[in-house]
Amino acid sequence: MTVSLGKDLVGLEHLSREQITAILDTAEPFKEVSERQIKKVPALRGKTIVNLFFEPSTRTRISFEFAEKRLSADTVNVAASGSSVSKGETLVDTARNLEAMRIDMVVIRHGSSGAAKFLGDRINSNVINAGDGKHEHPTQALLDMLTLRDRFGSIEGLKVCIVGDVLHSRVARSNIWGLTRLGAEVAVCGPATLLPRDVEQLGVTVFPRVEAAIEWADALNVLRLQLERMTSGFIPSLREYNRVFGVTAEKLARAPKDLCILHPGPMNRGVEIDSEVADGPHSVILPQVTNGVAVRMAVLYLLAGGSQDAGSSGSEMS
Amino acid sequence: MTVSLGKDLVGLEHLSREQITAILDTAEPFKEVSERQIKKVPALRGKTIVNLFFEPSTRTRISFEFAEKRLSADTVNVAASGSSVSKGETLVDTARNLEAMRIDMVVIRHGSSGAAKFLGDRINSNVINAGDGKHEHPTQALLDMLTLRDRFGSIEGLKVCIVGDVLHSRVARSNIWGLTRLGAEVAVCGPATLLPRDVEQLGVTVFPRVEAAIEWADALNVLRLQLERMTSGFIPSLREYNRVFGVTAEKLARAPKDLCILHPGPMNRGVEIDSEVADGPHSVILPQVTNGVAVRMAVLYLLAGGSQDAGSSGSEMS
Amino acid sequence: MTVSLGKDLVGLEHLSREQITAILDTAEPFKEVSERQIKKVPALRGKTIVNLFFEPSTRTRISFEFAEKRLSADTVNVAASGSSVSKGETLVDTARNLEAMRIDMVVIRHGSSGAAKFLGDRINSNVINAGDGKHEHPTQALLDMLTLRDRFGSIEGLKVCIVGDVLHSRVARSNIWGLTRLGAEVAVCGPATLLPRDVEQLGVTVFPRVEAAIEWADALNVLRLQLERMTSGFIPSLREYNRVFGVTAEKLARAPKDLCILHPGPMNRGVEIDSEVADGPHSVILPQVTNGVAVRMAVLYLLAGGSQDAGSSGSEMS
Repeated sequence: MTVSLGKDLVGLEHLSREQITAILDTAEPFKEVSERQIKKVPALRGKTIVNLFFEPSTRTRISFEFAEKRLSADTVNVAASGSSVSKGETLVDTARNLEAMRIDMVVIRHGSSGAAKFLGDRINSNVINAGDGKHEHPTQALLDMLTLRDRFGSIEGLKVCIVGDVLHSRVARSNIWGLTRLGAEVAVCGPATLLPRDVEQLGVTVFPRVEAAIEWADALNVLRLQLERMTSGFIPSLREYNRVFGVTAEKLARAPKDLCILHPGPMNRGVEIDSEVADGPHSVILPQVTNGVAVRMAVLYLLAGGSQDAGSSGSEMS
Repeated sequence: MTVSLGKDLVGLEHLSREQITAILDTAEPFKEVSERQIKKVPALRGKTIVNLFFEPSTRTRISFEFAEKRLSADTVNVAASGSSVSKGETLVDTARNLEAMRIDMVVIRHGSSGAAKFLGDRINSNVINAGDGKHEHPTQALLDMLTLRDRFGSIEGLKVCIVGDVLHSRVARSNIWGLTRLGAEVAVCGPATLLPRDVEQLGVTVFPRVEAAIEWADALNVLRLQLERMTSGFIPSLREYNRVFGVTAEKLARAPKDLCILHPGPMNRGVEIDSEVADGPHSVILPQVTNGVAVRMAVLYLLAGGSQDAGSSGSEMS
Repeated sequence: MTVSLGKDLVGLEHLSREQITAILDTAEPFKEVSERQIKKVPALRGKTIVNLFFEPSTRTRISFEFAEKRLSADTVNVAASGSSVSKGETLVDTARNLEAMRIDMVVIRHGSSGAAKFLGDRINSNVINAGDGKHEHPTQALLDMLTLRDRFGSIEGLKVCIVGDVLHSRVARSNIWGLTRLGAEVAVCGPATLLPRDVEQLGVTVFPRVEAAIEWADALNVLRLQLERMTSGFIPSLREYNRVFGVTAEKLARAPKDLCILHPGPMNRGVEIDSEVADGPHSVILPQVTNGVAVRMAVLYLLAGGSQDAGSSGSEMS
């Protein structure tokens, strides 16, 4: 029984439990590739992939780029600065041009929610969302889930609390959809100004105080606090944020059990998370990064395989 | 009978009909490579190519980069920002350094007319002009001609009108030289402020009104209007430009026959071309982009092959 | 008898004569690779390397990148702009993330002295210093020494004078350590404001006047004068600098023998060196660039080989 992801990965909201599980299961053997002396498999040899990043990124771009190269694909990076975009070209014209060059896949990061879907709907190449506005960042949530599965054996029934600026976070949104689909209980915790008004409608519990979240959860996914939230008036000060919502060793010491700690990075040490926690024994922040490459290899591989199974229609474009 | 391109491709002005035809003919089989599942041939394996872009570019740089990668070359990108150039190094020192690193080829885009020839005269590596000031952009004209040949079977006798800012356009100049060399009749049409004063000396007809051009031509090559032309006083307003010189469905409807529409991109929709035309049935704008990869593969291949045929002298440097 | 470089190359200060000689000897056969039609050997196939450049660079970055590609490694470039660094991430977090992605090697250029060692001490991946603040630029000194050895047969007993802004120069520091270790006599010459106060303690002679240096030396290594030294008041004017410390044909004409002239580039022609000298028969400035690729291939190869010899511990991380 083969599970297809369809043509694109724009988010986890509309993926089934089987599709998400298929990605996590496919990532398993790819983990081992990165541990080899020769970190390369020929799966995507001769495929051409564009990493189209309209927002700056190090870790996600590099992670995708190594995932692509370890699958033997040919990759080209396009950053917003120095691109036709600065000449006023529309996203759809950029996309059609890439397709006309017979690009097999586009990995897109864009400041506008919906950009990845917009692109995917207009071109035959596979599109992978590497973060679109405040909407979704599906490969981040997938690597979070793979890391939780590694640690706990299963996502089913797991209690995961997402802590911080849920309002502006595409990581939070993708995690909520993905985790609930796999049967986890999900909660969020953060200042009222940084929680979406209707967040309960996503099926999550709200903890106004991080102490209560710590008492409840098996794992905390600590979000990065964009420092501009302070100047924009969402929070009074970084120090105050750290005091009330920062995940500190002191607060964790009062938990009834050891909590698994995730963070999508880059971290603001001493703000949303203390170094003692980030570098502590229950942190899985670096395993998350390692899993990121494997999960991205899995997504690239499955999307490419999907279009290959699609037969003659696939052979035209990809 | 082998036709050599020489060491460099700096422009079409000094290429013979045989040389241009050789490039177009060589592009034909390369079109098919980009339609394969595995878009890769080993023709330039182990060759090292630098894409030296002193002006921003998305489509041309990506097109060259995929052409290079589909030929299995190793490529390195150098952008003006963040380069030694910002430390005041001269172009010739940059070039000699690249040659000293045993670069096989340099693809250069530069704001100064003549930069590609200047470079080619000073290094043994092959040099390909990807646009030099207002001078030439030969691979763009070659892909335009390949697209016209695809559509009409032959360039000979074809009536092609270049519409817009001919004065500042390296695309126009390369098209005029290439098309006339292959026996086409070439015209230009645009505001008097944006036509070179002595343009008739290039062997082209001038149409002051786009309606007359539409009546005459088999194909229109619609140039991008650099929006800074307006602030510089070359044209009164974008709206006025669109009204008088914009290629619209309304104007085309009065043509005695269907016109083939080309545009080098990126387009200013609603300025020099309307979306209805750009996306219409007679537009070959996306086939142009597809042909761009094939034409660049052909040029890279022929220049590399040329130096390989040159025997022992070629083995020293390339 | 195998000489190991250890895990990292952070500088020449702590390398033995045997280690430096091993790098130069290993570079010899790699010179030939860049002269081949197919400039590629499979030595680092499937290895993943990040070029992490926090300071702009053309020649060093390209030289490393082609060295990596000619060894068949997979490379990713990270520039400071557009990276997580601009989001305030610490260098150690960046490094740990790269390691978590199972990067085999990191080539780092950074504005802070000690950055490469700091990085190397915190990750298991091999680290190569491509210039750290005013500290060291070991591969530049290695290519300088390889070029001197090509010209003179041996470094032992050679008289080399480093001319210019020794105070701010990581190239000078690496050369002083490397050359003295191989038995050369080293001198420095420059304005008192641009010489380190305790420079004699490094075992070098100081020549206050370039004429005396020219009379003494077999080779001059002419440093680039950062033009901002003038505005910062280190020197009165570029013209005055050229008159007193510039290496000119006129001054060289009075030397008792022909001097070999080196420059790390990019050159300020007419400031620290005249074009007649830079392009003259005794200049080895372009052979330096050619040797740069070979030396970097040697360093990459030896560090990778070192970790392979390290056996089971190496197979985990690299």
